[in-house]
Amino acid sequence: MSIFEKARELAVIHSVSSIVGWDQEVHLPPAATEYRASQLSWLAAQGHEMATSDEWKADLEAAEAADDGKDPVRTANLKEIRRQFDLATKLPVEFVSRWSKAASLAKPAWAAARKKSDFSMFAPHLETLLGLAREKAELWGYEDEPYDALLGAYERNAKTREVAALFDGMRPELAEIAAAAVAKSKEDAPRLPAGPYPVEAQQKFNRMVAAAVGFEFDAGRIDTSTHPFCTTLGPRDVRLTTRYDEADFTSSLFGVLHEAGHGMYELGLPESDFGLPSGSSVSLGIHESQSRLWENHIGRSREFWEHWYPAAREAFPALENVALDDYLRHVLRADFSPIRVEADEATYDLHILLRFEIERRMLRGEIAVADVPGAWNDLFEASFGFRPEDDAHGCLQDIHWAMGGLGYFATYTLGNINAAQLAAAARKDEAIDAAIRRAEYAPLLGWLRENVHSHGGTLDPADLMERATGRKPDTADYLAHLRSRYL
Amino acid sequence: MSIFEKARELAVIHSVSSIVGWDQEVHLPPAATEYRASQLSWLAAQGHEMATSDEWKADLEAAEAADDGKDPVRTANLKEIRRQFDLATKLPVEFVSRWSKAASLAKPAWAAARKKSDFSMFAPHLETLLGLAREKAELWGYEDEPYDALLGAYERNAKTREVAALFDGMRPELAEIAAAAVAKSKEDAPRLPAGPYPVEAQQKFNRMVAAAVGFEFDAGRIDTSTHPFCTTLGPRDVRLTTRYDEADFTSSLFGVLHEAGHGMYELGLPESDFGLPSGSSVSLGIHESQSRLWENHIGRSREFWEHWYPAAREAFPALENVALDDYLRHVLRADFSPIRVEADEATYDLHILLRFEIERRMLRGEIAVADVPGAWNDLFEASFGFRPEDDAHGCLQDIHWAMGGLGYFATYTLGNINAAQLAAAARKDEAIDAAIRRAEYAPLLGWLRENVHSHGGTLDPADLMERATGRKPDTADYLAHLRSRYL
Repeated sequence: MSIFEKARELAVIHSVSSIVGWDQEVHLPPAATEYRASQLSWLAAQGHEMATSDEWKADLEAAEAADDGKDPVRTANLKEIRRQFDLATKLPVEFVSRWSKAASLAKPAWAAARKKSDFSMFAPHLETLLGLAREKAELWGYEDEPYDALLGAYERNAKTREVAALFDGMRPELAEIAAAAVAKSKEDAPRLPAGPYPVEAQQKFNRMVAAAVGFEFDAGRIDTSTHPFCTTLGPRDVRLTTRYDEADFTSSLFGVLHEAGHGMYELGLPESDFGLPSGSSVSLGIHESQSRLWENHIGRSREFWEHWYPAAREAFPALENVALDDYLRHVLRADFSPIRVEADEATYDLHILLRFEIERRMLRGEIAVADVPGAWNDLFEASFGFRPEDDAHGCLQDIHWAMGGLGYFATYTLGNINAAQLAAAARKDEAIDAAIRRAEYAPLLGWLRENVHSHGGTLDPADLMERATGRKPDTADYLAHLRSRYL
Repeated sequence: MSIFEKARELAVIHSVSSIVGWDQEVHLPPAATEYRASQLSWLAAQGHEMATSDEWKADLEAAEAADDGKDPVRTANLKEIRRQFDLATKLPVEFVSRWSKAASLAKPAWAAARKKSDFSMFAPHLETLLGLAREKAELWGYEDEPYDALLGAYERNAKTREVAALFDGMRPELAEIAAAAVAKSKEDAPRLPAGPYPVEAQQKFNRMVAAAVGFEFDAGRIDTSTHPFCTTLGPRDVRLTTRYDEADFTSSLFGVLHEAGHGMYELGLPESDFGLPSGSSVSLGIHESQSRLWENHIGRSREFWEHWYPAAREAFPALENVALDDYLRHVLRADFSPIRVEADEATYDLHILLRFEIERRMLRGEIAVADVPGAWNDLFEASFGFRPEDDAHGCLQDIHWAMGGLGYFATYTLGNINAAQLAAAARKDEAIDAAIRRAEYAPLLGWLRENVHSHGGTLDPADLMERATGRKPDTADYLAHLRSRYL
């Protein structure tokens, strides 16, 4: 088997894991939890064994030696397979086992600590995980600082200092926009009628909207789970999930638009290259750009609702006496919440900037673990104007650190930045812009397919952005978008 | 790894296949079919490779050599693991590949032939599959006749001549009961009101009934699929499916009771032995006994509906003016259908006896493939009094042969025989009998757990029956049951 055939077989294993994982989130009977873990762990072991085997290495080396560089996709595939092989094999088995053990102990400890809002219960675990993250960064290697290595695992070849420059540069204006949006929302408080918005009516409406933006139901589904997600079970099998709030149909709808953005990216990747880097998504920051583009730039726009509001009113008679403008105030309402996952578009990035700052300083040793709650609350107060009531609403709110996911948060804001830059670039094409105004999305999706999806993982995210928009990622379009929407 | 650890790992692989297969039947988007096949085939290859490997053989031999016979469960496990290993390894790779190829070509040819009711389109495939079945029987070996080997793969150590003796012995009385039941149904034609029986109301009612007979919803689910089935995704994860007929709620209900019987067997196997023979079902004939017992002996009884009919009326207002006796006539209606899967309890076994006869004669070379349609129709006419209108309603109706499943059909009637014998034995316990009359099923389920489920696959089916009921399987209880119900 060539390394490319091997990579395709590995994709079979990973996609089977995705089936098993999807079923776990959507359908698992309560008593089945324990055995399900052993099924997932068997699959993970098969995949890991294969991807770190001597045969894999030998086949990769043989293909690298034989590569004459004439086929740039082949060369890019080999480069990315090599990068992933190095990431996997630079970590000794002994380290991986310490890592999994620490993470599996940290997760329940974090959950208990959050429940009691007692940081001291989680602190020793965070200490261990931080040490392991440092070790990992050393094993992987980095250019400027250890954080590069962690960030790079999610956002290929991203540089911490460049991300920091983007984030630092946008902070003042972001804070200004957020404050203005929150103030405006407060004085002109929008209120959706209490409903009812029955789940079945929501499902029907969501399906209609998802199909209209271009999600292909012959190659996918929408189901229900506690935490919405999108997962790929095969090249033509992408599953979205959402959850339903019978008091507010927009909650499930924007969830669906968000996940459909992820899903349309997955379905837009070159099908024949499934399992190769050229048939895979490139990074979390690009993935999130697709979800945010459809959720926020399309789904929360006035032009979208000018078209869709009559249908929403038909689906939900409770909206009968709500004018479009009032409804839009609800869709675009903003508030300073202490909780990231409850944050709106206008305030969301402030949560991310805070986390990026804390993580980077922790890793540099500038903040000791014991001082994390204080540092969190100080930074939070500086951005949001008040202190979280307790650590459950502060540094204990997210699961990411407990899963060993230092470096992940930044990709959310990179996604927002990329989404705005891509949307602006696409709309420079007048036909696309006009179509969007008519609530026709095929031209926009076509542009994304051509300029983003079709490249798979053959380009670094920053290069992909440059080729699609003419510029490396910068914050100009994103800030302009927020300004025009909220100021 | 010991052979027992290996067997448990193999069960992980098989159960993952079951998850993937369940999703395929219940949720698969249409465009995902092709890749899904490659996922299932990868899993099948992993399992096959493991179960036929040199390591497996060496570990099995080591365990056999070390077995001192003091632990009968251990000895029984080794004996059954050995049997399965021999079944798998006596077939050379070259044969297995010819077999799969022939079956994969035969399936679409059979479907096309049935559609056009043109036996000649399927005949060459049946010829090939029959030749392969003979070859398989020689490779596996047998005592009396080749059919033993094929039957034994489904019904451990069953002997064709014993099954033939059972079937031949019951044929005259079976025919008499069927004829009387059909005649009675005709003269006193029962008719269920046209409904509506909305799917949601059926689902709710089915769930209530399934829970009442003892199906555990914390370890299982009911979903919808084209063909109802029961599958085990883990020791505490058993999934049933059914399909809905909005004109007749009893169709989905009896489907659920049938599959719940299979499911309760699976959930009653010793959980800690999952993956070992002692934690596995023993045969199709025992499995089918559990489904038939709950579907027919419990679900179609007057005492059952004396309790449940008021609830059915509440669930389905269309039943308002239907008296219990009229409803029961619908539940127990009988008719001579040419199609097995549409047959009722009173006529079902005649279909099986016919197939058993034809298969056995084909294998002995007493009927040439070209003569199958004629032989089928002659035998059918002898039992049912008329000839099928065409081969689509005759020898082309079932998929089993096209899948290479010669020897399978007999287990359906063995299941009916076993069900009656087990039900009669259990009801000899007056407390169990009285509980059933009160529509309380825990004592019956407890008896089945103790006398059938808890043994897993440690006993041959006939020995299991003897231990549970005091007799090897015979037709006395089954014929008595049919007589008392239909004469």
